[in-house]
Amino acid sequence: MRILLIGAGGVGAAVTAIAARRRFVERLVVADVQLARAEKAVAATGDPRFVAARVDASDEAAVGALLGEHGCTVLLNATDPRFVMPLFRAALSAGVDYLDMAMSLSRPHPEEPHRRTGVKLGDEQFALAGHWEAAGRLALVGMGVEPGLSDVFARYAADHLFAEIDELGVRDGANLAVRGHDFAPSFSIWTTIEECLNPPVIWERDRGWFTTEPFSEPEVFDFPERIGPVECVNVEHEEVVLMPRWVDARRVTFKYGLGTEFIDVLKALHKTGLDSTNPVRVGDVEVAPRDVVAAALPDPAGLGELMTGKTCAGLWVRGTGRDGNPREVYLYHVVDNAWSMTEYGTQAVVWQTAVNPVVALELLATGRWQGAGVLGPEAFDAVPFLDLLTAYGSPWGMREGG
Amino acid sequence: MRILLIGAGGVGAAVTAIAARRRFVERLVVADVQLARAEKAVAATGDPRFVAARVDASDEAAVGALLGEHGCTVLLNATDPRFVMPLFRAALSAGVDYLDMAMSLSRPHPEEPHRRTGVKLGDEQFALAGHWEAAGRLALVGMGVEPGLSDVFARYAADHLFAEIDELGVRDGANLAVRGHDFAPSFSIWTTIEECLNPPVIWERDRGWFTTEPFSEPEVFDFPERIGPVECVNVEHEEVVLMPRWVDARRVTFKYGLGTEFIDVLKALHKTGLDSTNPVRVGDVEVAPRDVVAAALPDPAGLGELMTGKTCAGLWVRGTGRDGNPREVYLYHVVDNAWSMTEYGTQAVVWQTAVNPVVALELLATGRWQGAGVLGPEAFDAVPFLDLLTAYGSPWGMREGG
Repeated sequence: MRILLIGAGGVGAAVTAIAARRRFVERLVVADVQLARAEKAVAATGDPRFVAARVDASDEAAVGALLGEHGCTVLLNATDPRFVMPLFRAALSAGVDYLDMAMSLSRPHPEEPHRRTGVKLGDEQFALAGHWEAAGRLALVGMGVEPGLSDVFARYAADHLFAEIDELGVRDGANLAVRGHDFAPSFSIWTTIEECLNPPVIWERDRGWFTTEPFSEPEVFDFPERIGPVECVNVEHEEVVLMPRWVDARRVTFKYGLGTEFIDVLKALHKTGLDSTNPVRVGDVEVAPRDVVAAALPDPAGLGELMTGKTCAGLWVRGTGRDGNPREVYLYHVVDNAWSMTEYGTQAVVWQTAVNPVVALELLATGRWQGAGVLGPEAFDAVPFLDLLTAYGSPWGMREGG
Repeated sequence: MRILLIGAGGVGAAVTAIAARRRFVERLVVADVQLARAEKAVAATGDPRFVAARVDASDEAAVGALLGEHGCTVLLNATDPRFVMPLFRAALSAGVDYLDMAMSLSRPHPEEPHRRTGVKLGDEQFALAGHWEAAGRLALVGMGVEPGLSDVFARYAADHLFAEIDELGVRDGANLAVRGHDFAPSFSIWTTIEECLNPPVIWERDRGWFTTEPFSEPEVFDFPERIGPVECVNVEHEEVVLMPRWVDARRVTFKYGLGTEFIDVLKALHKTGLDSTNPVRVGDVEVAPRDVVAAALPDPAGLGELMTGKTCAGLWVRGTGRDGNPREVYLYHVVDNAWSMTEYGTQAVVWQTAVNPVVALELLATGRWQGAGVLGPEAFDAVPFLDLLTAYGSPWGMREGG
């Protein structure tokens, strides 16, 4: 398989490191607007199948030319969500398959943002589904860990564990700490702000998609492998727009274990307008406050050496088991930062995001996953995915009782 | 009196409006780096004694030239504290008197910032005191409301109310709200961050000056005129470095009624590095995060129409009364935003800061206050100041019992 990876930030570099161990990769072109970042990721592998390139992800023509130049048949998008649509369109125009780990951005409902959805996550992508189907090409959207592995868990639960599902509730938590930093998010703050400050979206069979106030319905969820209890709140996330399209359930939610301190910081950024992506004038220059927040904080991809602890992504499922009795399970995937640093030199959160699209690419390369159109991970058989993830050295787990 | 006012922000514009009602002003040159701001402040008075000029406050030679051009004998500094030293030096070089409302900036102790002082507020100014004395000119420093009126209260308490003072505790609180804004500080956020995130300074007779952790020693203080109880914490403020130089007391503190919400925002800005004045690179530009915070928030001087409530500046004094019995009083000055908007079109906090240097200038113009060197407000007789403040339409109050 000949792959064009766009974005050599934390996740892109980890994708490169993981792909370097897999034989299905014939060519991986690592492209970034900063050529040095792409070159660094490629050099770290020392693998002749890998080459670096410079490209502006918002330049559809340049992306198309790069795909053609290297004969790539698939584009893997590892940029931030602002570049989803240009890359999605570039792949469609070029007639190649497409994968991403975050979907096109939402816009709140203009009158009732905390009650009704406006433009939902992925709406712009699903609007072009007919073109992808007509072209016979696949856009596999939301194929990281969350969304991604969490959606695979939903398919698995529906096919193998439950007769009826009352709730699919993604629950994400960690006990990561960063030495020497008061406050150091373990994932892109730009994306975290986007997720957490947009109105959270919920799906219910009788009501469809609807929204709430940010940080709604706090609950303490007990995470496995000694991570323990973490306060989780509703946030906007792709699983809620993906799962109901392919998996039958009464209710779909996403709660993020942000913890009180992180929630307070996000609330403060929102109150002060520092979450905004609209430029403000500062002396002679104009900058978007959110970009300044990202620049003021340490780069999360570089914190692995200072980090300790584990991160957990998973899906809590409640419903009726195949034996007719009530059942609750938590399907999960834990990465210990010490392990990912030793094995890949990559911090846990970034590694956990990056491994899943590589697994998916391998299933597509070997023909075990096939499809056309705009599809989520839950549109495919979960078993080969979970087996291959385990074969990558990173097993998943299931806790009976939720 | 011929005065050069530098800074036509909220406080500078209010100084102009207040001075326009006083006959002692022969000439007021209002200068700002943005000429339009200065022109607007002057135009609002319609007073031929007032003229606008453009000047860069960091350009000592240009400031000196402007003083000479208009024959000014005093410079009133209404800029943010970064410009204290160039303006202080410009006045000294030009041989004119100088007033400010905030003093030269502190620098934390390099090893023990939360235990020991480093460079204190005003240290750079006091280091030049000999030059001012030798020139026979006066630098009246910290002559706003806090520092300023609070220091006048300390002098008054020592001269007229107490035989011995155990503690001089400045306590500042408000019940101001701003319609339509989640979060809208009523005073310069740049200065508020500087005050609140630096290590608070405390003075004790047996120990001298020392520092604590930010936001230390929270207490709920009950403010008069139905403002009511507000949570106050230690912050770094000029009174603590000024009062012990001229007023005998066992302990001097400053606590600011920030309220829990404001404290949480300030903590978040600090955690995320957004309080920093060191530029960060954002794309192709470099900006100081703190300047972006200021730019992202509404201009406090423009919020008067949306604001309701009162602001209170005052000094709580505990000690032994002149009759030998224990005594506690709270000397205070309250401004109702509705009053300051009706009378001057200026919001309460800004007006309360601005009135005090105008009163002080009038006392200097009439010779009722005289002095040479670098002196705080508590170096002068308090009675004429308090009487003149009342004559300006803004009486002070005293609550027996603290």
